[in-house]
Amino acid sequence: MKHSKATFIGLGQMGAALVPPFIDAGLQVTVWNRSASKADPLVALGAKAAADFVAAVSASDLIIVCLADYTTSNALFHQDEITPLLEGKTIVQLTTGDGREAELGALWAAEVGVNYLDGAIMDYPTKVGGPECLLLVSGDRAVWDSCETQMKLLGGRMTYVGSKPSSANLLDGSLLTMYYGNTFALMQSAAMLEAEQVDIKDFKTALNAFKPVIESTWKRTIEAIDQQDYSGNEASIHVHSLGVQSLLKRAKKSGVEHGLLQLFSEYVDQTAARGHEADELPAAFEVFRRKG
Amino acid sequence: MKHSKATFIGLGQMGAALVPPFIDAGLQVTVWNRSASKADPLVALGAKAAADFVAAVSASDLIIVCLADYTTSNALFHQDEITPLLEGKTIVQLTTGDGREAELGALWAAEVGVNYLDGAIMDYPTKVGGPECLLLVSGDRAVWDSCETQMKLLGGRMTYVGSKPSSANLLDGSLLTMYYGNTFALMQSAAMLEAEQVDIKDFKTALNAFKPVIESTWKRTIEAIDQQDYSGNEASIHVHSLGVQSLLKRAKKSGVEHGLLQLFSEYVDQTAARGHEADELPAAFEVFRRKG
Repeated sequence: MKHSKATFIGLGQMGAALVPPFIDAGLQVTVWNRSASKADPLVALGAKAAADFVAAVSASDLIIVCLADYTTSNALFHQDEITPLLEGKTIVQLTTGDGREAELGALWAAEVGVNYLDGAIMDYPTKVGGPECLLLVSGDRAVWDSCETQMKLLGGRMTYVGSKPSSANLLDGSLLTMYYGNTFALMQSAAMLEAEQVDIKDFKTALNAFKPVIESTWKRTIEAIDQQDYSGNEASIHVHSLGVQSLLKRAKKSGVEHGLLQLFSEYVDQTAARGHEADELPAAFEVFRRKG
Repeated sequence: MKHSKATFIGLGQMGAALVPPFIDAGLQVTVWNRSASKADPLVALGAKAAADFVAAVSASDLIIVCLADYTTSNALFHQDEITPLLEGKTIVQLTTGDGREAELGALWAAEVGVNYLDGAIMDYPTKVGGPECLLLVSGDRAVWDSCETQMKLLGGRMTYVGSKPSSANLLDGSLLTMYYGNTFALMQSAAMLEAEQVDIKDFKTALNAFKPVIESTWKRTIEAIDQQDYSGNEASIHVHSLGVQSLLKRAKKSGVEHGLLQLFSEYVDQTAARGHEADELPAAFEVFRRKG
């Protein structure tokens, strides 16, 4: 089997969490960390500690990296005496970084003949390897195909998100934006309900029932944006304007923070002002996208 | 069977949509609308058109109301010659309104000896009666128990949300807030990804995989708010501050609208300023709730 050996570079809290699933699956695992003692618990589980970085990258054709940042990682990998050792090997870069860092990583890999994937871990170290754990990986499809089985050991929801190396890091930020949007909207609602003496447990019941509506809204909104078609007959921007105004009025009357509803109201108004009064809510995308 | 007869008051687009599921289930259905001709299509399906409002409310012990607003509804029901006819009957008020209108409706019902529930229809008329259709109803539990079977004909996700008559209307607004929070956060993300040349279809893949994380966040946030316990070791307000700052910087650099991320950043900063830097994100609820 290709990639029956794997090396892990970086054994911080997250890096160390990546190793046990590979050991448990019976792969031959080598680990390396600048502070060598961090390898000890993993050696106790069956990993081999590399004597140095050269030995580490030489030991396997699949190298999984999880360091403090790309600067630390690049300082190790971009050395003239290291790059010849990497030729033909596969590096999966799971260090947290931005889109540009992932793109530069892929450019470097192409130059030195390394197969490269870049990823983002969307969960906590304690969840790694579990069926629920989500990781995103992007980069060359053929490289993904060659190590999909191994990478899926890291989480039941390991997801390949396209051939652009920066996609995983950029989508990481988008999912985080959804996380914040959800959590703050929930707090806006919870504050209003508290002021109106509704038990938040009733909100839990209602939100659970509403879940499929939110999910279908995600789907429809993405389709509308993708096709730049904001028409429909479910609820117009005009109807949404009345809805948001009513919520904003309620929040103000309750005496709770209402900046979020204020902003929603402005977005709906700006969408109407652009001539989309009869369109559906995804028309508000025109307010968000880069101008000119 | 109790409630084997039902009367529907108000046959606008939504009101008319409520009737066929009851006819299909074999109940004896009476309908009434100020403009009588609106009853015709429903009579063709098997409903009986009441000659007048008195005949309509006299025909059944379950009366389902869906009118333009509570003012219209109250003008019909709160007449001295009508209230004696309603005693002991059950009224389910599905007219769109606010929490105060629902509470006043329940007070009136208690005075005149009527069993009263107040609800909100969270879907479009074409979806009513379908397995996915969500309606919220609140009010006296015993009244709900007496007509649960009938009410569930209106939608597979008909949900009783507690004994406070205003709960359904108030929760309606909260779910709408979640809907807007989701849709605008999605647009914020989509605009950034477009500027960064990531295909929005990849976002669809990632969001689908992220769904369980969002759902578990809803659950955990509601529990933390309910118990006023913001401690935890998953990600501190300090960590969120770095995350949001990085997203805001990215959005600004992309040249897209970023008011939403700006607001998230302010909320996180205000939470830290209140001394919650080591707590989890639900601590931001303290910024939202009514002051003093």
